[in-house]
Amino acid sequence: MGAIYNDDDGASGVSQRETLGQGGVAAGDEYSSLCAQVPELRARYEAARKAGLSLDLTRGKPSPAQLALSEPLLSLPGAGHAVSKSGVDIRNYGGPDGLLEVREIFAEIFGIPVEQFLALTNGSLRLMHDTLLFAYVFGVPGSPRPWGAEPAVRFICPVPGYDRHFGICENLGVEMLPVDMLPGGPDIARIRELVADPAVKGMWLVPTHSNPTGYTTTRETAEALVSMETAAPDFRIFWDDAYGLHHLEATGPAPLPILAMAEAAGNPDRPLFFTSTSKITFAGSGVGFIGASPANLAWVRQHMGVQSISPDKTNHLRHALFLQSPAGVATQMAKHREILAPKFAAVQRILTGRLGAWPQLASWTDPTGGYFVSLNVLPGTAARVVELAAAAGVALTPAGATYPYGVDPSDSNIRLAPSMPPLFEVEAAMEVVADCVLLAAAEKVCLQ
Amino acid sequence: MGAIYNDDDGASGVSQRETLGQGGVAAGDEYSSLCAQVPELRARYEAARKAGLSLDLTRGKPSPAQLALSEPLLSLPGAGHAVSKSGVDIRNYGGPDGLLEVREIFAEIFGIPVEQFLALTNGSLRLMHDTLLFAYVFGVPGSPRPWGAEPAVRFICPVPGYDRHFGICENLGVEMLPVDMLPGGPDIARIRELVADPAVKGMWLVPTHSNPTGYTTTRETAEALVSMETAAPDFRIFWDDAYGLHHLEATGPAPLPILAMAEAAGNPDRPLFFTSTSKITFAGSGVGFIGASPANLAWVRQHMGVQSISPDKTNHLRHALFLQSPAGVATQMAKHREILAPKFAAVQRILTGRLGAWPQLASWTDPTGGYFVSLNVLPGTAARVVELAAAAGVALTPAGATYPYGVDPSDSNIRLAPSMPPLFEVEAAMEVVADCVLLAAAEKVCLQ
Repeated sequence: MGAIYNDDDGASGVSQRETLGQGGVAAGDEYSSLCAQVPELRARYEAARKAGLSLDLTRGKPSPAQLALSEPLLSLPGAGHAVSKSGVDIRNYGGPDGLLEVREIFAEIFGIPVEQFLALTNGSLRLMHDTLLFAYVFGVPGSPRPWGAEPAVRFICPVPGYDRHFGICENLGVEMLPVDMLPGGPDIARIRELVADPAVKGMWLVPTHSNPTGYTTTRETAEALVSMETAAPDFRIFWDDAYGLHHLEATGPAPLPILAMAEAAGNPDRPLFFTSTSKITFAGSGVGFIGASPANLAWVRQHMGVQSISPDKTNHLRHALFLQSPAGVATQMAKHREILAPKFAAVQRILTGRLGAWPQLASWTDPTGGYFVSLNVLPGTAARVVELAAAAGVALTPAGATYPYGVDPSDSNIRLAPSMPPLFEVEAAMEVVADCVLLAAAEKVCLQ
Repeated sequence: MGAIYNDDDGASGVSQRETLGQGGVAAGDEYSSLCAQVPELRARYEAARKAGLSLDLTRGKPSPAQLALSEPLLSLPGAGHAVSKSGVDIRNYGGPDGLLEVREIFAEIFGIPVEQFLALTNGSLRLMHDTLLFAYVFGVPGSPRPWGAEPAVRFICPVPGYDRHFGICENLGVEMLPVDMLPGGPDIARIRELVADPAVKGMWLVPTHSNPTGYTTTRETAEALVSMETAAPDFRIFWDDAYGLHHLEATGPAPLPILAMAEAAGNPDRPLFFTSTSKITFAGSGVGFIGASPANLAWVRQHMGVQSISPDKTNHLRHALFLQSPAGVATQMAKHREILAPKFAAVQRILTGRLGAWPQLASWTDPTGGYFVSLNVLPGTAARVVELAAAAGVALTPAGATYPYGVDPSDSNIRLAPSMPPLFEVEAAMEVVADCVLLAAAEKVCLQ
């Protein structure tokens, strides 16, 4: 059984599993009480299975209660509101940078000059995808050639991380290099080694309340990222601040002014800033934003100007009228917090109550924001936990989804997304998850 | 002066210029009355210049009166309308194919099975751009390799045509092959020759009320396009039916069921259908659609599924509630026609009144739909006409814009876009245009 403590799986998840029990205690001593519980666990699990549950912790979707916070959007901008304060007919073509009013609100929040901050399509995934695709086909400012014309293109991927980021790389054949996401940000020492390779053209990063760990990159780590030497002259950080304002506590970390930091470090073109209102207003009908240096912005405008005549300014005005100001956004986020915090508290309470006695079998993050909890189970059992939960009517994100190519080398990480179901369903689902974590572990350590 | 009658400029615009005078009449005989008018023309032009006009015939934008037809959209879907008839919460993630209700309306109109018809982003330019970019990077079903990995990629471009289509090709380095747009569609004989080259991977086509000629492709030509042998196994027709419903007369041509025709011809994957509500509702905030064969659709879904979680379903529901049915769309288009038809009639009236006596100097199309009139002036004078008009406060689309790379080899085509200004401005602008056409011609034939 020594293998289960063996942290030799290379790049993945070391930081989280530091809280797992260390050392090589023999199974017999370590797990005797777990193994004794198996009949009870089985009975509980079978009962849950027969209850015909249909619970879903798979994706970071806002709940109907959260969506209802933005109900006024359904009738905005309202009859007669065809021309914006800045004099733009929002119904017609034109204005490829997006509506000034909504750019002003979010540029101020994120500490980016409004002239370097564009409001574009619904969602930011499309903006990140298209930016990477343009880099692949055309290169970015400073590229010797299009990224796709290089013998190889590699991207640094903090893990566990966001499956849709990884999907973009995989679709393009961009080779992914996993790097541990630590509580203060991605493992900068490892990144410094990797960027000595000129084929390493960029990296993903969710800097605030990262998906799925909830970890927030410190200013010190961010400074290191924008300052470090890179062999590629056109290295880009895809700085996806999707959860920059999504705190579970009354005060959260202020957004890092990453563009200004990069400029001060002499690498103004390194970061590409992305965010959206997807989890501030409506998840499918929000506004996506890009912030970038003047050179990057000129490049973005060139290619997006060929792609589209103009973004949906009606939706921009709708959002500007609803959110009004940075203070209005803060008020909205406080309302989200009231709905989300009890669900995240329930996850912690149940995990601690059910699994706290088993640090060898499970560890998890306790995020102060974002949409996820990252749960690490006994290595080699994550897929089995997901399978057991599914059979009992609890849908979890597939094991491995938080790793490049969908492969978690230690088969230990599970992403929990408690935002969507109502609180009582989160609680019911988490009880089942706890049972499944223990059962899967027991299958491994007791039944052989 | 014989050169001005010499129709040896190769591929461009022959069909329209057939109405220009033929033969080599000496300038003295032909133009004596024009040259006698020069002082009067100059006086009129100077008077216009001093009037400080600011008129704009550059782009095919709907007018504020047209946009006002969709005023209810500004407050739709309305409070409480968060869940669609088909049971989808339009505010949340999900539903990458778009909302069924709006797909049903337009699928029926265009004669495409709804399961082959997706509702996606605002506008269709983005859909066409992204589809071509995906073909370039990944290839399409049936491609031996990505188009971008071919030694050369060539595209057939009916001319005069849509500058934004050409911009997409130019940005990607796709070589453009101009082919005359004839009254019944693109020159199919010439196309048959060109598609014998396996590097010719596709073509653009605005089949109905084409930009800028207003010409509509006949069923016979469409049959030929979907039936012809092509050397490339993965030849695609980008069938941009942007003006499929935009008739200037009470009855217009019915949309050709191009997907069904292609399937019947044994080439189901050849056409990619695009349209949008950009000039049915709001130009910047409409809904874009793709129709395609099952194989193409699977391919589109694969790449767009990586690019985006879901389209803006709120806007889909807004449109479904406002337009309601194919009959609702027809009613809306009749209202557009009432506003647009007098402007197009004014263009014809003024062109005929001022230039009708000079078939050697000017010919133009008389469209039964769409957003443009295509004006051909004395070869070698189009840029000068645009320059003269600009100096007199009348903005025209730059000469050459309707040709690949912005170069009209005979410098004769000008795109007139009368939709945006109010009627009296269209009239004032067209008087100036007529003066400029005659003045530019006189500069060439009288003053040397």
